[in-house]
Amino acid sequence: MALLQPILDLVDLLYKKGIRDVVISPGSRSAPLTLAVARHPGLTARVVPDERSAGFTALGMAQMSGLPVAIICTSGTAVYNLSPAVAEAYFAEVPLLLLTADRPLEWLYQQDGQTIAQDGLFGKHVKRSYQLPADYTHADARWFIERTGNEAVNLCVASPPGPVHINVPLREPFYPAPDETFVYQAGRVVEALPVEPQLPTDAWHALLDEWDGTERKLITVGQLPYSPELMRVLTQISQEFQVPVVGEIISNLGRNELFISSSDTLLAQKDTDLLERLRPELLITLGNSLLTRNLKTYLRAYPPTRHWHIRPTTARLIDPFRSLTTQIPMAPLPFLTKLLADIDYQRFRQGDDDSDEESTYLTTWQTADRAARRLMESHLREAPFTDWSATQRVLEALPDGSHLHLGNSMPVRYANLCGLDARQQVRVWANRGTSGIDGCMSTAVGAALRTQAVVTLLIGDVSFFYDRNALWQPDLPKNLRVVLLNNAAGHIFRIIDGSSSQPELETYFETPHDLTAQRTAADHHCDYEAVADQDALSEALSRFYAPSDCPRILEIKTDKFVNEADFKAYKGRK
Amino acid sequence: MALLQPILDLVDLLYKKGIRDVVISPGSRSAPLTLAVARHPGLTARVVPDERSAGFTALGMAQMSGLPVAIICTSGTAVYNLSPAVAEAYFAEVPLLLLTADRPLEWLYQQDGQTIAQDGLFGKHVKRSYQLPADYTHADARWFIERTGNEAVNLCVASPPGPVHINVPLREPFYPAPDETFVYQAGRVVEALPVEPQLPTDAWHALLDEWDGTERKLITVGQLPYSPELMRVLTQISQEFQVPVVGEIISNLGRNELFISSSDTLLAQKDTDLLERLRPELLITLGNSLLTRNLKTYLRAYPPTRHWHIRPTTARLIDPFRSLTTQIPMAPLPFLTKLLADIDYQRFRQGDDDSDEESTYLTTWQTADRAARRLMESHLREAPFTDWSATQRVLEALPDGSHLHLGNSMPVRYANLCGLDARQQVRVWANRGTSGIDGCMSTAVGAALRTQAVVTLLIGDVSFFYDRNALWQPDLPKNLRVVLLNNAAGHIFRIIDGSSSQPELETYFETPHDLTAQRTAADHHCDYEAVADQDALSEALSRFYAPSDCPRILEIKTDKFVNEADFKAYKGRK
Repeated sequence: MALLQPILDLVDLLYKKGIRDVVISPGSRSAPLTLAVARHPGLTARVVPDERSAGFTALGMAQMSGLPVAIICTSGTAVYNLSPAVAEAYFAEVPLLLLTADRPLEWLYQQDGQTIAQDGLFGKHVKRSYQLPADYTHADARWFIERTGNEAVNLCVASPPGPVHINVPLREPFYPAPDETFVYQAGRVVEALPVEPQLPTDAWHALLDEWDGTERKLITVGQLPYSPELMRVLTQISQEFQVPVVGEIISNLGRNELFISSSDTLLAQKDTDLLERLRPELLITLGNSLLTRNLKTYLRAYPPTRHWHIRPTTARLIDPFRSLTTQIPMAPLPFLTKLLADIDYQRFRQGDDDSDEESTYLTTWQTADRAARRLMESHLREAPFTDWSATQRVLEALPDGSHLHLGNSMPVRYANLCGLDARQQVRVWANRGTSGIDGCMSTAVGAALRTQAVVTLLIGDVSFFYDRNALWQPDLPKNLRVVLLNNAAGHIFRIIDGSSSQPELETYFETPHDLTAQRTAADHHCDYEAVADQDALSEALSRFYAPSDCPRILEIKTDKFVNEADFKAYKGRK
Repeated sequence: MALLQPILDLVDLLYKKGIRDVVISPGSRSAPLTLAVARHPGLTARVVPDERSAGFTALGMAQMSGLPVAIICTSGTAVYNLSPAVAEAYFAEVPLLLLTADRPLEWLYQQDGQTIAQDGLFGKHVKRSYQLPADYTHADARWFIERTGNEAVNLCVASPPGPVHINVPLREPFYPAPDETFVYQAGRVVEALPVEPQLPTDAWHALLDEWDGTERKLITVGQLPYSPELMRVLTQISQEFQVPVVGEIISNLGRNELFISSSDTLLAQKDTDLLERLRPELLITLGNSLLTRNLKTYLRAYPPTRHWHIRPTTARLIDPFRSLTTQIPMAPLPFLTKLLADIDYQRFRQGDDDSDEESTYLTTWQTADRAARRLMESHLREAPFTDWSATQRVLEALPDGSHLHLGNSMPVRYANLCGLDARQQVRVWANRGTSGIDGCMSTAVGAALRTQAVVTLLIGDVSFFYDRNALWQPDLPKNLRVVLLNNAAGHIFRIIDGSSSQPELETYFETPHDLTAQRTAADHHCDYEAVADQDALSEALSRFYAPSDCPRILEIKTDKFVNEADFKAYKGRK
């Protein structure tokens, strides 16, 4: 048996448990893990030198593939560099398995290099943290490793999925002899069967009674991955029962004639009479976080009488509108499917017809939404060249069925204002678990690695340069397209009312710079083009999605003062 | 009273407690802290957009100024990006005060943006973590903030110094009205008096007896800041009592006729008879970590009978050579000064003379050290152009009295092999608390900001690009000189025996690249020059330290195969 046989077997077990992709940052302490992965016939390894980027790259891969992705890094602060991605994965519910090499525990606090307190390092931002033994001679130790590998992957994918940490102390020698062959013996694979939660009959009946007994029903959808099935059932509920469905760009509902997609503009208005008429009696929420403040503050200011939140777990009482009355621990799709069937049957049995009240409620929302949309469109028609108007062009040019990654801070907000035509069938992603700017590009790179489709990243300049090490990895995906909105500063601070009026705005908030992506693109062998007006943008976009041998970066240069004046004019006009 | 008056007062208190420098990364949640600092007449604020770089920049500033440096960042993963620098500060014992803005606790797990579990986030890598209240209406809350500010700074600087975390929940509004004036009222300043630990008389006598009763005494010095006083007392002890003093480049003893500076070469030899003669009976260790494996494994293989470790705290039993017998909880300088006085007096009283044995022991070390040095020099004279030979040239060219920051992985090791002439009076720094490559350049930038002297950073290519955001901050210090050893790969893996023989060497360990610093230098307005041979290097160095309006980057391009062959030849020859 090889000295590090249990490590080989652990890696093989991960494969047998369904892991296919491993992101590796180089290191010597982690060499046994790296070699075990590199030589495994079924695993695909990807090397990313900067651990911060490695973490987010793995996150993007896991989101795209729907499978847990393992990450290997060496000991010391390397591990801490993964932590921003780990926190995002925890709140965004993405399955990552963190395999961090460590010195055996007895070396801690002995003035040895690259030695920090790694056990439990990620605190509350992993679902669980395991500490493997450093010695494998006792059979109990090997049993523990085998059991832990099984439990860790089961836990990683169990609903809601999330990051799990296995800290792996390793003794020297780290490297096999030249003639040593690796033999993988995963051992037992313990399957954890999935369950499909069902509500007890009386609980269902109580919900149906509540549904029946309330008139104005509203569904709001937070961040969710693209799901045609879910869209279909939401469409049916909305049409058949005259229920408005409010989505943002990250809800992946798309903009169509039915759903409410301009809530950010619509709810900014001051017509309290209309706002009162939009108030739901029963609010049903699903998905993760909402993006816009207007929607959140509206629901807080005009709370429903009843509020159901559909989410597979009740472990956290998520109550952002202070109106929650029922936690429904199911996934949205099976719940809404059954709800639709049951209310359909009930209506059939009772011979109900749509009441005028219900019909008016949906119409009220739709009319207001269309007005908001027209307002936005007419504003953009007259607007100068801004981040926002450029965003609209970019969204219109997205290839059908492609993926869109939205950078945090302003890009995701501009994109949400514009909305995406549902017929484009674009899948929208954004790091909204923690809404950081620190890994948006790395996440998009990871996503592009795991799809044949085009992945477009729309990103601001601060987050682009923050995360430029995303591009420092071999074999960048050719299907990646980066659209950089460069206004030469952290522009959001000029948009926010509070910071824009401070004398410290430039120096302490915006931190203006004169960087462009040109040299970064050249360094990392990406195509690059810059535009600074609408015509040049249109022309560049017409070529942007032609097949290429490398990623393409399109830099859109705008003026922060023009952006500010235009956006404030829009806000004033609403 | 302003709404956030306790925040203004806390900032004023930090000033009154001796903090002068604050590193700020922009954010909206943190705006009250940012504005309180920006408008404070006594505090100097520096803006660094990438929190990872901000943390290390603050570390470099604190090391150079000898004062605690405060760091302000916004909520969410921004905080996690500080963690590599926090871990380094913890193990390197650098006083950092982390002020992390947060949402009030009730917003956690409510699907709100930039909200993670910040309380206690840094785990075991801060000396303590405080959670401030979000509401200041109760007098007890204001008392708690005042008390916490005092305790945090006192703790930050108490021996051994280190990072302290104050998590600061903040409610909206974050921004003052345009006409609001800030009035700072620090309140009580609580001083924590420093103590000078003294050993009880009988403990001293026991130590002196041990000193007298042992023949071969050896002092090894781990990483320590440059201290002429300490050098002087070590010189006297060594000369008067024939005690060899072994230092590495990070010990800041410099290379002179007395101290042993080539231990890495010297202890690599196989002459077990000599190694046995070098073995100490009494080992005295001081300073933080040692750099080289040869020295550590020698002391482990040839352990002393007695081993004193001098370190201001006994809280950790630091025993890397498995020989520790006495923990002496004093700072090295006062302990050695008193030791010298007492043994001088004892010798005078006893009329002792240097025994032959003692004299031979020092001579044995010195003769071996000189031989090792000659070996190294003769190798380098014949060597091709390599990272190592280039390093020697760079070290020789350092301005007298300047500062040298050594990047981790190979640069610090090459520099240690060469050593630094003590007459140059160069102060040497390196992130050896955790030995990460993640913040070496940011640390050097921070250091250069807090001295008028030249700061030279010698860094490898992987750590240069890893930390290139170090250069993304306004007003880079003109006294910064970056020497980049670019061998186009993570070269250490080609040097390490284990990894260099693996078929996976290139793909999974070295991760070769074709990056140069040219474009990065242009992006950040640094002078740039590249050289690829000894003559060009010498010529470039002759101009390198001329005053400039911006930092200068000198890129030294070497061939990794030449480096490998040369270094392995040296190791084989020893």
